[in-house]
Amino acid sequence: MNDANTTQLKGLVSGIEPVSELWREQALQRLDTLTKPLGSLGQLEAVAAQFVAIRRERWAQPVRKGVYIFAADHGVTAEGVSAYPSEVTAQMVLNFLRGGAAINVLARVHEVALTVIDIGVAADFEGVSGLIHRKVAKGTRNLRREPAMSNAQLAAALAVGASVADMAAAAGQNLIAVGEMGIGNTTAASAIACALTGSPASLVTGHGTGVLAAAYAHKVDVVQDSVQLHFGTNLPAPIDVLCCVGGLEIAAMVGTILQAARHQLVLVVDGFIATAAAAIAAAIGPATLGYMIAGHRSEEPGHRVLLQHLQLHPLLALNMRLGEGTGAVLAMPLVESAVALYREMATFDSAGVSEVSA
Amino acid sequence: MNDANTTQLKGLVSGIEPVSELWREQALQRLDTLTKPLGSLGQLEAVAAQFVAIRRERWAQPVRKGVYIFAADHGVTAEGVSAYPSEVTAQMVLNFLRGGAAINVLARVHEVALTVIDIGVAADFEGVSGLIHRKVAKGTRNLRREPAMSNAQLAAALAVGASVADMAAAAGQNLIAVGEMGIGNTTAASAIACALTGSPASLVTGHGTGVLAAAYAHKVDVVQDSVQLHFGTNLPAPIDVLCCVGGLEIAAMVGTILQAARHQLVLVVDGFIATAAAAIAAAIGPATLGYMIAGHRSEEPGHRVLLQHLQLHPLLALNMRLGEGTGAVLAMPLVESAVALYREMATFDSAGVSEVSA
Repeated sequence: MNDANTTQLKGLVSGIEPVSELWREQALQRLDTLTKPLGSLGQLEAVAAQFVAIRRERWAQPVRKGVYIFAADHGVTAEGVSAYPSEVTAQMVLNFLRGGAAINVLARVHEVALTVIDIGVAADFEGVSGLIHRKVAKGTRNLRREPAMSNAQLAAALAVGASVADMAAAAGQNLIAVGEMGIGNTTAASAIACALTGSPASLVTGHGTGVLAAAYAHKVDVVQDSVQLHFGTNLPAPIDVLCCVGGLEIAAMVGTILQAARHQLVLVVDGFIATAAAAIAAAIGPATLGYMIAGHRSEEPGHRVLLQHLQLHPLLALNMRLGEGTGAVLAMPLVESAVALYREMATFDSAGVSEVSA
Repeated sequence: MNDANTTQLKGLVSGIEPVSELWREQALQRLDTLTKPLGSLGQLEAVAAQFVAIRRERWAQPVRKGVYIFAADHGVTAEGVSAYPSEVTAQMVLNFLRGGAAINVLARVHEVALTVIDIGVAADFEGVSGLIHRKVAKGTRNLRREPAMSNAQLAAALAVGASVADMAAAAGQNLIAVGEMGIGNTTAASAIACALTGSPASLVTGHGTGVLAAAYAHKVDVVQDSVQLHFGTNLPAPIDVLCCVGGLEIAAMVGTILQAARHQLVLVVDGFIATAAAAIAAAIGPATLGYMIAGHRSEEPGHRVLLQHLQLHPLLALNMRLGEGTGAVLAMPLVESAVALYREMATFDSAGVSEVSA
């Protein structure tokens, strides 16, 4: 990392305030006055209180939802770590733009504004409309052989990510998620999980989109080798992890997450790749963690490790492993429910309902 | 149980056909053609296939959602088994009608039509509008001392429940839930769980709305005593369980569940009380089980026992224990998502996306 990177990071982290424990406390007190047995809304009460602690608004505004998908390619696919060919990244971007992917359907059903950003797809999208064009490079280099990206590429991807959070805030959104598309990116996320948590490669490496048997064993080796190559036995700085074994879409997500916290937006964390980005963001700026709600727990084994590392308790566990922000968008109606219950339920007093007998 | 009851039950069960395994198979095949890694939508794929297996429609119609709350009082509250006074049942009914309860908020947010039925509240609601008036009795008798209801009351409650499923079908709904309000009804549900599964009272009895310490131990005794009183060491017929230790709202829910299956409606099962009704319905008409999707797993320990007994895998586990159908309505957006994904996602062919490499 060079001086320019250091300055950029300091800038990104500097404006992030911890969420307000005072507002959380007030929210919890109000929840106890609502017409329901104490605590009976379970995890939704914690979510409502966290929302208020982040937004610092007495009544909490209704949610306005956005999801941002960053797409990029990965040089490590040269190692044969994925069940799908690299071209699928670009093909899926076009599928997003035509509205045919899982995230399109979920965003429509749950009224979440969807934005797709090309941050590093190895294809020419010039003139393609409906896409935010922010290509930093045509994919990363092979992280098993060399750092995935240069310092300049890292800086550019972080800056794009931050600008996306600015967009979300400017659009009046208060509840956002980042998602991704990038063939090969579970390998990058596994290497990140390995480097950040010190877990063995075999524990944080999964089958991704469906790699099997021998190819799976090879994927574990690739993850192991890459961490060994770049960091040896050292505990690396999170930004170096991102640079050496990350991806352009992961770097952009880190930028969005940090800047979203600065704007006091509530962030629903998606699956394995997005949580790898969240873990790096939290390592760089620990206050960021208070802004995160884990949407779901995916089937990727490394996701469980990262959630535990961050002490996040996912709202859903549906054995999904799709990415694209799908797990986060599926969890948004739960967050929306929590906020609406907080805002709209009657109190024991107002409804004339008797409280617990002495 | 008398002959009239037997005839009624036979009538209710006779029209229920098993869900279609052929349609389920076709749905699963279609899911494998959609632009996502095979099986990557996890539990949502099973839900979509179940929806198609129930509805037997090639493309599945978009969901139309309804939730039906049955309210009734319980004579067993004389034993001091609840943290709240009995009057709260009637007070909460009025809260439902004014729109201030948790289920009102959730039904609004998720666009679920809400209907409230007085099946046995110990209060005079004459002239109260917005309520479906079907009072069978002003609460049950004390199940620790005598059968909770008479054969005639049981028959009436079942019939009301069935008529509610007719209403739902006539309204064009295809996705429904039943919920309840009834101070004392976790005691009834615990006794049902005990009698149906043979589990010890201590394993299926929880803290309900918040009963503590000595009162909790007493509640366990009440459950134990009631099962002993009515059934001794026999394995009772499910309909006798319902009559002796059930509740009027539970009997009505059984009626709705059976009749909903007849209409091929998809049923999202709510928490402990609703699942006690579902367990009785499944014991009476085993084909009913195929129509059920478990919405959530509540904090009540007996709920886990009943879900396991029915082999249902809940979509949510948010530590809730509120009743009113809240857990089911929270799960409806997930079912809606599953159906929308099934209906609307592009296929690999149509989107020009490459499939798994050889």
